[in-house]
Amino acid sequence: MSQKHRIGKIATLLAMLDEQEVMPIHLDPKEVRTCEGKVGTMNMQKVISSVETAVKRNGLIEENVYRETHALYHAILEALEGVTRGQVAIGEMMRTVGLRFAVVRAKPYHQAKEGEWIAVAFYGTIGAPVKGLEHEAIGLGINHI
Amino acid sequence: MSQKHRIGKIATLLAMLDEQEVMPIHLDPKEVRTCEGKVGTMNMQKVISSVETAVKRNGLIEENVYRETHALYHAILEALEGVTRGQVAIGEMMRTVGLRFAVVRAKPYHQAKEGEWIAVAFYGTIGAPVKGLEHEAIGLGINHI
Amino acid sequence: MSQKHRIGKIATLLAMLDEQEVMPIHLDPKEVRTCEGKVGTMNMQKVISSVETAVKRNGLIEENVYRETHALYHAILEALEGVTRGQVAIGEMMRTVGLRFAVVRAKPYHQAKEGEWIAVAFYGTIGAPVKGLEHEAIGLGINHI
Amino acid sequence: MSQKHRIGKIATLLAMLDEQEVMPIHLDPKEVRTCEGKVGTMNMQKVISSVETAVKRNGLIEENVYRETHALYHAILEALEGVTRGQVAIGEMMRTVGLRFAVVRAKPYHQAKEGEWIAVAFYGTIGAPVKGLEHEAIGLGINHI
Amino acid sequence: MSQKHRIGKIATLLAMLDEQEVMPIHLDPKEVRTCEGKVGTMNMQKVISSVETAVKRNGLIEENVYRETHALYHAILEALEGVTRGQVAIGEMMRTVGLRFAVVRAKPYHQAKEGEWIAVAFYGTIGAPVKGLEHEAIGLGINHI
Amino acid sequence: MSQKHRIGKIATLLAMLDEQEVMPIHLDPKEVRTCEGKVGTMNMQKVISSVETAVKRNGLIEENVYRETHALYHAILEALEGVTRGQVAIGEMMRTVGLRFAVVRAKPYHQAKEGEWIAVAFYGTIGAPVKGLEHEAIGLGINHI
Repeated sequence: MSQKHRIGKIATLLAMLDEQEVMPIHLDPKEVRTCEGKVGTMNMQKVISSVETAVKRNGLIEENVYRETHALYHAILEALEGVTRGQVAIGEMMRTVGLRFAVVRAKPYHQAKEGEWIAVAFYGTIGAPVKGLEHEAIGLGINHI
Repeated sequence: MSQKHRIGKIATLLAMLDEQEVMPIHLDPKEVRTCEGKVGTMNMQKVISSVETAVKRNGLIEENVYRETHALYHAILEALEGVTRGQVAIGEMMRTVGLRFAVVRAKPYHQAKEGEWIAVAFYGTIGAPVKGLEHEAIGLGINHI
Repeated sequence: MSQKHRIGKIATLLAMLDEQEVMPIHLDPKEVRTCEGKVGTMNMQKVISSVETAVKRNGLIEENVYRETHALYHAILEALEGVTRGQVAIGEMMRTVGLRFAVVRAKPYHQAKEGEWIAVAFYGTIGAPVKGLEHEAIGLGINHI
Repeated sequence: MSQKHRIGKIATLLAMLDEQEVMPIHLDPKEVRTCEGKVGTMNMQKVISSVETAVKRNGLIEENVYRETHALYHAILEALEGVTRGQVAIGEMMRTVGLRFAVVRAKPYHQAKEGEWIAVAFYGTIGAPVKGLEHEAIGLGINHI
Repeated sequence: MSQKHRIGKIATLLAMLDEQEVMPIHLDPKEVRTCEGKVGTMNMQKVISSVETAVKRNGLIEENVYRETHALYHAILEALEGVTRGQVAIGEMMRTVGLRFAVVRAKPYHQAKEGEWIAVAFYGTIGAPVKGLEHEAIGLGINHI
Repeated sequence: MSQKHRIGKIATLLAMLDEQEVMPIHLDPKEVRTCEGKVGTMNMQKVISSVETAVKRNGLIEENVYRETHALYHAILEALEGVTRGQVAIGEMMRTVGLRFAVVRAKPYHQAKEGEWIAVAFYGTIGAPVKGLEHEAIGLGINHI
């Protein structure tokens, strides 16, 4: 892959690595903007709004520009397809998630015309609403913004 | 997460890290068995059979035991949900993938009764059948075996 | 297309055209029965029941005949696939709809044996639960009745 | 089919046959463990938890072993795909179910290595939340355990 | 359930019972028309056309009446949702089916107005394209005709 | 709806209206760029590539800019969800389509920051691969570009 910034890999590593683990990719904050957060819930709305709130609070998207909200929303939903694998539902299907997420905004391609893109990654657990009865899950969504 | 071995994280890192990047998790080959591979195609059958062939060649599952084939197959399909995000199809929908994959088999939980589980991770690109017109994709599937 | 009455096109135009816009198809009320309505909500149940209520109130289907209820229900659901594009869910996925709908019942085919069919069309907006952060959406479902 | 125990057929017959109807397959309780139950609801969570509760109460799975909970959960969900045919949702889509279910745990294959599997079957009705406006539905899910 | 003819149960039993097993429901051929068949394939088109051909050959639907073809087609597809559980695909997803099917046409309800309905049931195996690496699957679709 | 240009409505009308029918919306070619085409096939790839080819030939998107190809591709797929209602597949599911399509590129919102968006609409028939055994279908996909 000849991309300049692998925003999907960066987002996934940010969501997945623990504090003591070394991020193998150097991030230039002038070129790659990121934000991170956590959410544990049986409510899909809460997962979506946690990411949206973190992204807006960190200024990664412009709050009242629908274009940017639309790009982010579809990236979140695509990432949730990986987490839920089949039906984008949690509580309704009697399961709960505990997720860390990371969002990355940058110009991933060498060509200037390709502009900015956004990546949303989730990493954590999905399972029965009983502590420990769960396994890992990952999801990544990418969109032009 | 209090798992002993995060097989999903391990599989994703193995699929995602480049040769020169340091794996942040130490793997004890007596406890964690892994295999890796690559596949580039518009044909979903070829993605599935590439993983199955690599897994069998490396002895991660017993070839003629349906129980193990069944566990692996569902883990592959769940991982492909993350890659394809919506319809588990590539060529039929005019898109192509270039993927690295990793499979991990281990006992992820502290309790002996939880036994062995398998994780399948994909990392690479998905996009139009034109070089460069593509973005990153990730998928992870986990199953008891 | 050699249909006598394009009930799908008629329903879509009825749902889509504003008052001042001219309907390009002449409708003979003896041959083509129609009804229209509006619904704005984050609740899918409310979308479905708004259409069902309008249809029954206008006598387009017989209320306690399951056969007719069944035909209408599947036409509504198919129309909602076009509106939601992927998961037939709104509020759970943190989105809201503002829809006009039209239902048409007629004999669309020249052959008498083909009998009556029903078309359900939606037109309006789908988007974030913030005014203006939304785009257009359309859906059409057709069934024999 | 050369299986020793057709656990899917057994589960489906147990869910489907009325009291006065003769079960055509003889079940050896030492080899084939079964449990049955009923649930009527618009709430998918209640369907899932009714099956889980019946299975645990009858000792068909070990309650705090995630491996077994995981196997059962996926078998239930697969069975619900057959019942719901498209979107695994009931109340949200304005429909209700009245279901009998049966769960079977046994070694279906001749080879000892294939070990135990679990089958979950549903039979009953799905339809509008009005008595009688409904038709039959069936679903079967099978998993290794 | 107070239906006069449980066409879904009848179709499932016809597809599921072996020759030597006794059908627990008496069928009056003047009231309940049925046909049966078999298909083994990795090609979904072949599954669909096998059912359609059997139904037409047995005169269960009128061949050139789209209304009846449409009712049958949707019943077949709904039944295939139960068989495939997630994506209505077989060969593309590296799996094969061996299915018996039964189609039933009758007036299932006591009220004359409810008219005729059709039920399509599949029973057999789904699995890897290797003999024996497979498990049972069931699907049922019902539609007004 | 207070949009400046309803690109979804425009695209749907362009795809749906016959030559002799009057377009009720005046289009300023400096503000709203459009293109139209036709495709009849059992092959989903052909549907997608027909739209892509028409769009590039008419200069509605820049051919080698992935950003624009990506926006168009997702708009096409979302429109196909409306046409196919459930599984984005045609030939594999033994059905064929005869579609007219229209693509519209414009700035639909009053705010300059919202920039350009693209709408893809399909209108035509879907049905059995036998002439006349078909009904109407519609689909609309919208994306920022």
